[in-house]
Amino acid sequence: MSTQIKTYLELVKECDTLPYPDEVEEYTRLTSEYYHFRLKRSWGHADEDVRSSYTTVGYILPSVVASMPWTDKFHVDHSVQTVSIPWPTATTGDNAHGDYETLAIAEQLELAREKDSIPILRKWRAEPYRILGLEDRREVRIARAGSAVFGVHTMGVHVLGFCRDNDGGMKLWIPRRSPTKQTFPGMLDNTVGGGLTADEDVVGCLAREAQEEASLPEAWVREHAKPVSTISYFSIRDERAGGPEEVGLLQPATQVLYDLELPADMVPQPLDGEVAEFLLWTPEKTIQALHEGQFKLNSAVAWIDFFIRHGYINAQNEPDYLELVARIHRRIWF
Amino acid sequence: MSTQIKTYLELVKECDTLPYPDEVEEYTRLTSEYYHFRLKRSWGHADEDVRSSYTTVGYILPSVVASMPWTDKFHVDHSVQTVSIPWPTATTGDNAHGDYETLAIAEQLELAREKDSIPILRKWRAEPYRILGLEDRREVRIARAGSAVFGVHTMGVHVLGFCRDNDGGMKLWIPRRSPTKQTFPGMLDNTVGGGLTADEDVVGCLAREAQEEASLPEAWVREHAKPVSTISYFSIRDERAGGPEEVGLLQPATQVLYDLELPADMVPQPLDGEVAEFLLWTPEKTIQALHEGQFKLNSAVAWIDFFIRHGYINAQNEPDYLELVARIHRRIWF
Repeated sequence: MSTQIKTYLELVKECDTLPYPDEVEEYTRLTSEYYHFRLKRSWGHADEDVRSSYTTVGYILPSVVASMPWTDKFHVDHSVQTVSIPWPTATTGDNAHGDYETLAIAEQLELAREKDSIPILRKWRAEPYRILGLEDRREVRIARAGSAVFGVHTMGVHVLGFCRDNDGGMKLWIPRRSPTKQTFPGMLDNTVGGGLTADEDVVGCLAREAQEEASLPEAWVREHAKPVSTISYFSIRDERAGGPEEVGLLQPATQVLYDLELPADMVPQPLDGEVAEFLLWTPEKTIQALHEGQFKLNSAVAWIDFFIRHGYINAQNEPDYLELVARIHRRIWF
Repeated sequence: MSTQIKTYLELVKECDTLPYPDEVEEYTRLTSEYYHFRLKRSWGHADEDVRSSYTTVGYILPSVVASMPWTDKFHVDHSVQTVSIPWPTATTGDNAHGDYETLAIAEQLELAREKDSIPILRKWRAEPYRILGLEDRREVRIARAGSAVFGVHTMGVHVLGFCRDNDGGMKLWIPRRSPTKQTFPGMLDNTVGGGLTADEDVVGCLAREAQEEASLPEAWVREHAKPVSTISYFSIRDERAGGPEEVGLLQPATQVLYDLELPADMVPQPLDGEVAEFLLWTPEKTIQALHEGQFKLNSAVAWIDFFIRHGYINAQNEPDYLELVARIHRRIWF
C-alpha cells in the first residue's frame, strides 16, 4: 500500500479550509455564497446606532436557508444574504435579549426537525453550545447539532497527554477512535477532547472528558492539566466529518489546548466506547503517522502545535515554520 | 504618578497596529495609501504566466516613493501604486535573479543616501536581511536600514530566559535597555534578541546575541535554547520606534521564540552596552510591568506568548484569551 506523505502545512490546510482574504478570488467566491447569520451587536451600548446594528456570528449555506421553515422571529433578506434575529421592542431582565435569541433558535431547530427540513439535524445532539463573538458577551445558546447549520464559532478542549521515560524521553498517549464513531471512525486523535457546553468551564469540561473517555481521575486531571495555547481554524466540512448532506457547512472553531503529563503508572483506559485503544508512541512514530494522514483533522493540528511548543518542529528543520505557526492560530473575527 | 493599566489585548494591538481585513473601512483606508513593492514571483516555475507575474513583498509609503531618486532598475507605476523590479532578459546562474535584485536594491539605497533623499536612511544599519515571501525561496538581500523603507517582512529571534528556585518557582531574566539606545531607550525587553541577518541561521543568531548582549556562553546557549513558537505582527511605526520621519512606515515581522532555562548560578551580564541591567523578577512582577506598558512593544508580545505557554494566561482567567492567542500569531501573507 502506498501512502501519500503530507507536509505539516498541507495537514493544517485540510483542517483550515477556508481561503484567506488575500487569496482574493477564491475567498470572495466562497464567502459570497454564504448567508450571514446576524445577531444584534450589543444590548447595553450607550450608542443607539451600535445597539441597533447587527454583527455576524455565523455563516449559513444557501441550501440551508432555502430549506429552513423560518419562523417569524427570524428576518431573512435574500437581497443582501442575511438571516437576522431582531429584538422585540419590550424586553427586560439581565440576559433577556440573550434568552429571547436562545429561544428563537431552539424553536427554529425544533420546527426544522419536526418537518425534517434539514437532513443533518436527524443526527440530533442536544448539548447547549454558547454562541461566541458577541461584544457584550451576553449568553445565547444553540444546540450542538444546530451549530454547524448556523455556522457559528464553537469552542472545545484538546488535551495532549504524555509521559516521560526514566531517561527523560517523551512518549505520547494517542487514542484510536472507535470504528463505530459517527465522525472520523478508526482514526488517531488527541488524548482527550470534547466540545465546551454552555453549562461548564474549560477545566470542568476537560476533566469530565478525561474521566469519561480515558478513565483518568477527574480531580487529578483538574490539578495537573496545564493550559498552553489554542488552535483555531475555519473548516468547510467534507464527507469525512459526517455525510454528503453536510458538505459545504462552514465551521469556525477554537480548541483550547492543555498539556497533561501523566506519571508512568497512570494508564488511560477506554471507558465510554468513544476510544478503541490507547497507544503509547514516541514523538517520531507519532510524527510519521501525522504525515501519513492517520489523524482526525483538527487533532493533527493540535499535535502539530504540541510538537512546535516542545521544539520538535522548529525554524531550523521546517521550511514552512513561519506560515505554519501563524496558520494554526487563525483569527476568527466573531 | 498615575499609570494607565493596559490589557494584554491592548498591548498586542499597540504592536500589531495594522487593522484586519474584516475591519473593512480602516483596513482599506490604510492599505490603499501604500505602494506595493513587488518582485517577480518564481524564476523556476514551469508556467510562463507565473514566472512573469509579480508578488508583493513589501509596502512603501507614498512620501517615500515621491522622495526616492528611482534608478532605471525600478519600475514605478503611480496609476496602480506599485514599485517593481523587472528582470533583465539575459540572466544566468543559480541565484542570478536574486543577485540582480539584491544589487538593484543596494544601488537604490546607496543613491538615496548620497542624495540624502530619505531622512531615516541617515541612521544606516548595513547588516543584510533576507526578503521573505518569495515562492521559489531565492535569496534577495536588503540592508537592515532599508527594510523599513521598503516595508518588507523581516525576521528576528527573541529569547525568553528564566531560572527556577529550589521549590520550582519561576523567575524571569528581564533586561532594561540602555538609556542611550536609538529605539525604546530605558524600556524593559526580552532577555536576548536580535534581527536575523542573511548570513546566519536562527540558532547561530540567538547564540551570538546571547554572548554579545548578556555574556552567556555561546556554545551552552546553542545547546539549551528551546524553540517554542513565533510571534508575528504588522507594525505601523510611530515615534517611539525612531523619530517623526519614520511615522507610518509599515513593518511586518516575525520573531522566532526560544525559551532558555538558566541554572541558578548562571547570571546574564551586560556586555555590549545595549543593556543597562538585568533584573530577576517573578512572573507576577513582570506581568504588572507589562500591564503598565514598561516593555518594548514586540517584547511585551513575546512575554505574553511566554505566559500563555506556561499557563499564567489562560481561558479561565483572561476574557480575551481566544482573540489574544490568534492575534499574536498574525499571518503575514508574504
